[in-house]
Amino acid sequence: MGQIAFQDESYCKGNHCWVCGNDNPHGLYLKSYWEGDESIATWKAEDFHTAGWPHVLNGGIIAGLIDCHCVLTAMAAYYNDKLPQEREAPDYWFATGSLKVDFLKPTPIGKPIHLRARITHMLEKKAVISCFLYSEGEACARGEVVAVRVPAGAGPGK
Amino acid sequence: MGQIAFQDESYCKGNHCWVCGNDNPHGLYLKSYWEGDESIATWKAEDFHTAGWPHVLNGGIIAGLIDCHCVLTAMAAYYNDKLPQEREAPDYWFATGSLKVDFLKPTPIGKPIHLRARITHMLEKKAVISCFLYSEGEACARGEVVAVRVPAGAGPGK
Repeated sequence: MGQIAFQDESYCKGNHCWVCGNDNPHGLYLKSYWEGDESIATWKAEDFHTAGWPHVLNGGIIAGLIDCHCVLTAMAAYYNDKLPQEREAPDYWFATGSLKVDFLKPTPIGKPIHLRARITHMLEKKAVISCFLYSEGEACARGEVVAVRVPAGAGPGK
Repeated sequence: MGQIAFQDESYCKGNHCWVCGNDNPHGLYLKSYWEGDESIATWKAEDFHTAGWPHVLNGGIIAGLIDCHCVLTAMAAYYNDKLPQEREAPDYWFATGSLKVDFLKPTPIGKPIHLRARITHMLEKKAVISCFLYSEGEACARGEVVAVRVPAGAGPGK
């Protein structure tokens, strides 16, 4: 795609997230990119990331992928459009305020999954992001995230 | 507690779930129990199960814990109250139809978390389960799950 992933941008330095951070030693390392005004990501599970059924992707993993892809989409939009001068020194991150996932059909675990998200509302301190998760072209889950802009130094341990 | 965990009951045989199954080689092994008409669970994260901030528990993990604790609560109620004669040969499992999580405050990663859930509606084929996640007595997340009763043999790979 020739782009830098959101997660590799300078505004993501110090991101310890297990799903999407480069600073996690045992993470899932999700990578998200723009495609027009939508964000996309492709990821493939390990064999043990199963649901109760052995060949179905775990719902918590699905929730985590949707959560991070959406929050990073808000982050990327914020730093791309709102405050480009702060790209080298992020003052704000986004945290998840709420997460809703509808599971539409079982997601096979052996195939790559594709995420596609769109910001539906960007407010002063919150963003609403809508996301679908696909496997082999079929929508398997739908998510909506409300992301909240918070000072990057506000979390415990920072 | 002197009880058998829901996950160790015979109706959970063959549960490959990464969060709550005994048949997963690298799982989180959540264990849930009745306490009156509520279900409870205690669990502690690994150091790398972080959110973006290094000492905060990951939101996808929180979603997964709430999801599984709620679904297994529906399963336990179904097999305890509805069809005890089927305990040795489960014909039905519950799958997650939808999952909603509100993140109330950051959940510290170094402390045990406590889950407490209650079935709010048990319909013929669906259950609605409400859950709170606590750390050191404080509510850090609230979840609601709609679980759908499905034939245990209906999933891919079964």
